[in-house]
Amino acid sequence: MSTLQIDAQGRLRHLLTIADLRRDLLENILDTAESFLPEDGGNARKVPLLRGLTVFNLFFEDSTRTRTTFELAAKQLSADVINMDVAHSSRSKGEDDLDTLYTLQAMGADIFAIRHPENGASERFARHAAADVAIINAGDGSHAHPTQALLDVFTIRRHRPDFAALRVAIVGDVRHSRVAHSTIQALRMLGTRDIRLVGPRSFLPENAPFDDVTLHTDTATALAGADVVMGLRIQCERIVGDALAGVDDYHADYGLTPANLAHASPSALIMHPGPINRGVEITAEVAYGRQSVILEQVRNGIAVRMAVMAMIAGNRR
Amino acid sequence: MSTLQIDAQGRLRHLLTIADLRRDLLENILDTAESFLPEDGGNARKVPLLRGLTVFNLFFEDSTRTRTTFELAAKQLSADVINMDVAHSSRSKGEDDLDTLYTLQAMGADIFAIRHPENGASERFARHAAADVAIINAGDGSHAHPTQALLDVFTIRRHRPDFAALRVAIVGDVRHSRVAHSTIQALRMLGTRDIRLVGPRSFLPENAPFDDVTLHTDTATALAGADVVMGLRIQCERIVGDALAGVDDYHADYGLTPANLAHASPSALIMHPGPINRGVEITAEVAYGRQSVILEQVRNGIAVRMAVMAMIAGNRR
Amino acid sequence: MSTLQIDAQGRLRHLLTIADLRRDLLENILDTAESFLPEDGGNARKVPLLRGLTVFNLFFEDSTRTRTTFELAAKQLSADVINMDVAHSSRSKGEDDLDTLYTLQAMGADIFAIRHPENGASERFARHAAADVAIINAGDGSHAHPTQALLDVFTIRRHRPDFAALRVAIVGDVRHSRVAHSTIQALRMLGTRDIRLVGPRSFLPENAPFDDVTLHTDTATALAGADVVMGLRIQCERIVGDALAGVDDYHADYGLTPANLAHASPSALIMHPGPINRGVEITAEVAYGRQSVILEQVRNGIAVRMAVMAMIAGNRR
Repeated sequence: MSTLQIDAQGRLRHLLTIADLRRDLLENILDTAESFLPEDGGNARKVPLLRGLTVFNLFFEDSTRTRTTFELAAKQLSADVINMDVAHSSRSKGEDDLDTLYTLQAMGADIFAIRHPENGASERFARHAAADVAIINAGDGSHAHPTQALLDVFTIRRHRPDFAALRVAIVGDVRHSRVAHSTIQALRMLGTRDIRLVGPRSFLPENAPFDDVTLHTDTATALAGADVVMGLRIQCERIVGDALAGVDDYHADYGLTPANLAHASPSALIMHPGPINRGVEITAEVAYGRQSVILEQVRNGIAVRMAVMAMIAGNRR
Repeated sequence: MSTLQIDAQGRLRHLLTIADLRRDLLENILDTAESFLPEDGGNARKVPLLRGLTVFNLFFEDSTRTRTTFELAAKQLSADVINMDVAHSSRSKGEDDLDTLYTLQAMGADIFAIRHPENGASERFARHAAADVAIINAGDGSHAHPTQALLDVFTIRRHRPDFAALRVAIVGDVRHSRVAHSTIQALRMLGTRDIRLVGPRSFLPENAPFDDVTLHTDTATALAGADVVMGLRIQCERIVGDALAGVDDYHADYGLTPANLAHASPSALIMHPGPINRGVEITAEVAYGRQSVILEQVRNGIAVRMAVMAMIAGNRR
Repeated sequence: MSTLQIDAQGRLRHLLTIADLRRDLLENILDTAESFLPEDGGNARKVPLLRGLTVFNLFFEDSTRTRTTFELAAKQLSADVINMDVAHSSRSKGEDDLDTLYTLQAMGADIFAIRHPENGASERFARHAAADVAIINAGDGSHAHPTQALLDVFTIRRHRPDFAALRVAIVGDVRHSRVAHSTIQALRMLGTRDIRLVGPRSFLPENAPFDDVTLHTDTATALAGADVVMGLRIQCERIVGDALAGVDDYHADYGLTPANLAHASPSALIMHPGPINRGVEITAEVAYGRQSVILEQVRNGIAVRMAVMAMIAGNRR
């Protein structure tokens, strides 16, 4: 089946969302990422797969860290990289975005990594992109962040390849998190059924996004026996705005602390999309502890983004 | 004749203005740009002509878009590129600019693309540049924007090579437009005599810049039979500041709309330096319509800037 | 002796400060820098020594100029360069810096050039860096700026190789200057004993940093017979804040002017770390005069930073 992100030959054309990706394509991305990582545990090596191509990091929202991961991935593939931070005012219209797209295409852009504050923005770009131009969603609103989801499941797979047997707890502001949305979709696509979403009531979605996903306000219950515990970055403003009891209480109740993690499997993987807020959603002891794979996630993020770009570039008409 | 921008051997040394360029050099740039564009209509390919050289984009005025065109052109020539956005306060003096020039030359800059708010700034840089350093004017005040003029005439030449037979209408805030100034000079150098400047009184120069250039406040008269209609970007603040009747009236009277364009030749080329303000100086229907060459201008802008850099680099002492 | 910046084999591992560098290593850096400069007096040529490595310019403090020198040096060595400007608020903690370090290491950074407002920040990074990651101090607080010191003594050595015979006057806000601190250490390491620090009382340190360094408020006495006169950049706010008599008086009393320099050796080298404030700590006549080596300092700064990066990269585990 061909979709906006899958071409008529069934190959990856854009990367917009995990939702309608096929399992074989998803695994294909993970396998390709694996091939970029050396056996010695180091970082992905430089290869000439995108030589002569130009990657635009088109960021309508500040994110130095995410932009850097795309810039590094593109440079490791020997592409030329153009960073463009574009102001996005409340007066901007979708039409302005399209004018920008058409203009940068005419300049010779081959691949865009797009970060945008509006849900669905990257789909809009993809719908209007030229036949030989590819769009990668680097995060749109609270909708999706597919490369983060890919690096999450890639990191899990290296340690716990049996996704069907996995018990995963995702802790924090799940409701507003594009990371959570995309990662839940990727986990389910790979066969995980036991997914628990944990946080104060106002951080949980109204309803579970899938039938067998469960919602919890009690951390002890939610983490019981979990094999993977994934913290989400908290916007401290939101804790206050929601009249929660405050950062210290949040930390005690929902932080990834040794006390809370005592309920999970003793060998549970600890994950976080970064950057961490020490003393809020996680302690340093846990973030850099024996069970943490947080820095592996960062390293794997480069390899996964290289894989997406390399596959898309190989599939371009 | 040797000038600041033409060396003793009659070759291009800097690119500062179209005004005292020679016709053969101008055509030489266009021919070189042509050689960078592939036959299939795509973008200029990467070539190693500037390998080992360093291009500085030295911008004293914000312009992400123009800076990106120079960055892309330099990277397509395999140069190293340094982007420097330099704050230019009202307290800055010309001497500060020279200190910056001398310092960056000492760092090893080979070519500067300079955008500056003051008329004549790039000439000042060129006058003080070292013998092996070249200056390209990327827009100075309301004075000149020679690479824009070159891409304009390059784009026209690909469709209407007989410049002497051309009727060109330039619509908008001609008085404050460095684009208009430079493009009028380039058109005249190539033999065009019938150039009409169109806009409300306050947007027109006091006097026609050349004897056979005509000024018009009535769009119907000005566009009659035109082969090329070029819109200029409007600063909406200026419409208000000038107590014009407002954006809607401006659009009706001077916008590139199907109604206004009905007066021009049915095959007239529609041009605009970008970025467009939809619903102000142009409609989307026209901007992306059959007659529009606006996106060709963008693509050609990379090839033309590559040509200028490549010729200048080849001519360096 | 192994220190934080010197490894167990006695080789350069990081560059954090001149203070505990060894003389042979310092001279080794200068010799390596020399090898990058062509005989014709031009700029360092591009070499492939860092191909495949990634250099991060991690700047917690604005400094376009210094960042550009590191970017150029890395690109002349064929490294990939990532520029990261990181906001450093008064609420930031050292722990946040470490989280940034760990994350960027995981992304594959090989070398960091770090500019930071706090004294000792680069040592903190080095103490926590991975075994194959190197830190170069690009200026920390008022503590140290070792690459500036290296380019200063490199520039002096090319003109006055006998450091033991040298009389050096450093003029300006010595108390707050990391440049002065590092350069004094480098000069002493190479054998210079006669170092005079000159400025109004509030700009001088409480005590001389070394026994044979002398403090002066009278320029005529301090410059008498000096072979090298080094001006420091003045923060004009500080002159006011210190209730000094004002910029004009400062210029008359402590500016590098022909009148003040008449007391120095007629062939004294005039130096300044840049950018200069014309009419404050130096006149343009002196800055670009016969005795000035200020622009040589800039050019040499690229070669010296290339040397440091190349040596460190060659020594990486």
